[in-house]
Amino acid sequence: MNERTNQRINRRWVLAERPKGMIEARHFRLEEVPIPELEADGEILVRNLYLSMDPTQRGWLAYDTYLPAVAIGEVVRSGAVGLVEASRNPEFAVGDLVQGLFGWQDYARILATGPGKPTKLVPGVPIPLAMSALGMTGITAYFGLLDVGRPKAGETVVVSGAAGATGSIVGQIARIKGCRTVGIAGGKAKCDWLVGEAKFDAAIDYKSEKVGVRLRELCPDGIDVYFDNVGGELLDLALARLAMRGRVVLCGAIAAYNDTDLRPGPKNYSNLIIKRGRMEGFLVFDYMKRAPEAVMELWGWIQSGEIHHRVDVKEGLENAPDTLRRLFLGENTGKQLLKIAE
Amino acid sequence: MNERTNQRINRRWVLAERPKGMIEARHFRLEEVPIPELEADGEILVRNLYLSMDPTQRGWLAYDTYLPAVAIGEVVRSGAVGLVEASRNPEFAVGDLVQGLFGWQDYARILATGPGKPTKLVPGVPIPLAMSALGMTGITAYFGLLDVGRPKAGETVVVSGAAGATGSIVGQIARIKGCRTVGIAGGKAKCDWLVGEAKFDAAIDYKSEKVGVRLRELCPDGIDVYFDNVGGELLDLALARLAMRGRVVLCGAIAAYNDTDLRPGPKNYSNLIIKRGRMEGFLVFDYMKRAPEAVMELWGWIQSGEIHHRVDVKEGLENAPDTLRRLFLGENTGKQLLKIAE
Repeated sequence: MNERTNQRINRRWVLAERPKGMIEARHFRLEEVPIPELEADGEILVRNLYLSMDPTQRGWLAYDTYLPAVAIGEVVRSGAVGLVEASRNPEFAVGDLVQGLFGWQDYARILATGPGKPTKLVPGVPIPLAMSALGMTGITAYFGLLDVGRPKAGETVVVSGAAGATGSIVGQIARIKGCRTVGIAGGKAKCDWLVGEAKFDAAIDYKSEKVGVRLRELCPDGIDVYFDNVGGELLDLALARLAMRGRVVLCGAIAAYNDTDLRPGPKNYSNLIIKRGRMEGFLVFDYMKRAPEAVMELWGWIQSGEIHHRVDVKEGLENAPDTLRRLFLGENTGKQLLKIAE
Repeated sequence: MNERTNQRINRRWVLAERPKGMIEARHFRLEEVPIPELEADGEILVRNLYLSMDPTQRGWLAYDTYLPAVAIGEVVRSGAVGLVEASRNPEFAVGDLVQGLFGWQDYARILATGPGKPTKLVPGVPIPLAMSALGMTGITAYFGLLDVGRPKAGETVVVSGAAGATGSIVGQIARIKGCRTVGIAGGKAKCDWLVGEAKFDAAIDYKSEKVGVRLRELCPDGIDVYFDNVGGELLDLALARLAMRGRVVLCGAIAAYNDTDLRPGPKNYSNLIIKRGRMEGFLVFDYMKRAPEAVMELWGWIQSGEIHHRVDVKEGLENAPDTLRRLFLGENTGKQLLKIAE
């Protein structure tokens, strides 16, 4: 509500300039527009409460990937959880908590039908948990590790970005499945958390340790599954250390997301021949029909204390660009969220 | 037989210097030594008739791969077919035609037991055929394409090194399985053979055409299976053009075998994420127990004329280094063999 005019205002961040290199404030513009009115059957009006900050957003801002690029002047695409404030859709009632791609704005008018239909939150699950370990990142970790990586008990699983939202869950699922787990993260605090709280068998601090040397020490029989969130040099070091029939799960490549040019690829890829290895990419969207499997099992592990997770919550829609930057600067600890309303 | 001394002589090429970069004459030394005598039960003496020239030999000369590197002073490792001249092994009789890793020499003393045991040739199959389309290269093509690449009828299969011993068989099996086939080879003569004789749907001459542009034209729906014998820039162009759930079969990387340093890897590897793609290496040795499956089916296709193959035979043991070089200069047309005795 704008107090002077009584006009209800929707603040929204739009893409002002297509980023090359690291994202900066100037790439975005904060606008104030009237809150949208519902115009067609099937639509709902959502009041956003939390925005999800995800590395994949960097790609959306730059080029067509598995989704078309965000257009200049368009609201910045983002996962979010919000409250239904108005509905012309019999499946959604005012007061429902819903999750979807609602964007960086206070209010979103959403056509709540078809493949992009919002999902309702499971009652009783805290919103930050529903957006992290029980949300996309947890589901990503679950299917990426188990369906693509297919670890067997006794194998060695190495995770990059291990203190991140996805990586931390990957390592803990691997441990539950009987694997030896090694996490790679930046800084002593993250590594301490990995070993102390998340019960990884070992952690490598890529900022202060020689990763290649440490991988040799910690994985004397090689790496059976490398779950890669990072790309770059770490991927090359992991390929060099791959065990016979090792698998590389390509989840992301955050090291390269803000590069201006494509960096050289993994020069050790041909070790995949010698080791009869497999490198495979995946996207969580392909698994959404099976999401309940993952959520049920993750929920059990979280309640029993077998999986720890961390959520890093900042506040205020005005801080959205800076909060997204935290991912690429390695400043977040666990899932990065931005709370924009109570 | 040395005519002056009546001493029977074994000529053999040993590794004189570990090659860096392109292999040259100075990396090898031709020695004359007495023909070995059998010393233990289980051994056989083989008179080599044909040597097999294979890109993978370049790796064996340089470093430990899936086999230990050839030592300095050791006979150059090589596949071969020969005649048993003496035997202290009840499984092998004098006069048997056998195939195995007998090396660049006239005579090989072989312990014919255990995993490296020679195999006997199927009677009636010409030796060059048993060393090419019905030998390792045919078996490599068969399992690499069908077991790793898993093409489905109607899909588009692209092969690099398509006029080579393995690649030419890969494309023809893919065509038999109902796929659209595109071969990449160097020079008009090879490309004409691919389309005219081997019945590929199309061929790209990487020496005179823009491969990326041609792949776009010829694979409008993307590449479902890329069978890679070459690596390097072609692999990158194929990754960029990968279809949804596309597969890259890593069979070899001949482009890089004579490099002195590891060249940058495929910078488009992260397209494997967007396309949910898989890149997987394999070695034919893992499939040897299933070799009869491949040989039976390939033999049928060769007899019915559905598969054409070419063998490029040079002569004389003294020409072994030069004949191996032909592979890396792209001079061979089909399987390269060296005949060293009648």
